[in-house]
Amino acid sequence: MRQKAIVGAQHAAPLRLIRSARVAHLATADKNGCPHVIPICFVFDGKYFYSPIDEKPKRTAPEKLKRVKNIRENAQVALVVDHYDEDWRKLSYVLVSGKARVLLSGASHRKAVTLLRRKYSQYRKMRIDRLPIILIRPTRMTSWGAI
Amino acid sequence: MRQKAIVGAQHAAPLRLIRSARVAHLATADKNGCPHVIPICFVFDGKYFYSPIDEKPKRTAPEKLKRVKNIRENAQVALVVDHYDEDWRKLSYVLVSGKARVLLSGASHRKAVTLLRRKYSQYRKMRIDRLPIILIRPTRMTSWGAI
Repeated sequence: MRQKAIVGAQHAAPLRLIRSARVAHLATADKNGCPHVIPICFVFDGKYFYSPIDEKPKRTAPEKLKRVKNIRENAQVALVVDHYDEDWRKLSYVLVSGKARVLLSGASHRKAVTLLRRKYSQYRKMRIDRLPIILIRPTRMTSWGAI
Repeated sequence: MRQKAIVGAQHAAPLRLIRSARVAHLATADKNGCPHVIPICFVFDGKYFYSPIDEKPKRTAPEKLKRVKNIRENAQVALVVDHYDEDWRKLSYVLVSGKARVLLSGASHRKAVTLLRRKYSQYRKMRIDRLPIILIRPTRMTSWGAI
């Protein structure tokens, strides 16, 4: 199957996958191009992806986390949301290329906290309002597979 | 929870997660440091990770796939194997940093085909013996969470 570009809201199936997924995988790279990848919780508001720096529970200072350091060195990121099934005809993913930045406060940060707490009840008792949130602006979104 | 380095076979829980996982996520980056991430099927022989270029079903020439192009430009990769659970105390992952290369044939390629077909019955009917296989040599493995 070829990759398909997601160009608008008419692409209901990729958006359904994005909205139903509880976890995505975020790839960053440092200034030397050395990649890093981590599972993340996230929310998509139709325009941007948001992911809190929470560490569940957090023990490391947010600024020291590899993904935060990498984004400060190199804003280019990739995010994949996928569905695995033992019937490989049902495999699918949405791949997002984008630019990331770290929000510490402000209107976008507050919006992200609200959306994240709506999606994940686990965040309702966590002080994610006091923690950095990664904002990803997609520059390209493609889907693959049964989607 | 702090990340823990996996230094030997005594780390049974991370190895159990690696061996039981059906899918991992592979991050590569191109020569400009632009990251890419994709879900992959893989097998671990205790020393190397192997992942076939199969595309389920394949339509794109293997050499044109982004992950193959990236590895030829930049051998540094990251691989994460993780477990998601709505009880976040049970979240865990193993993060592998390593160097990748693309095998086209030879003893390592044959070994990988055998191991992949043992793990995934789906590959027994697929001609992965004729397709490139990505070999990843871990340079660092760390685990996080309930592991």
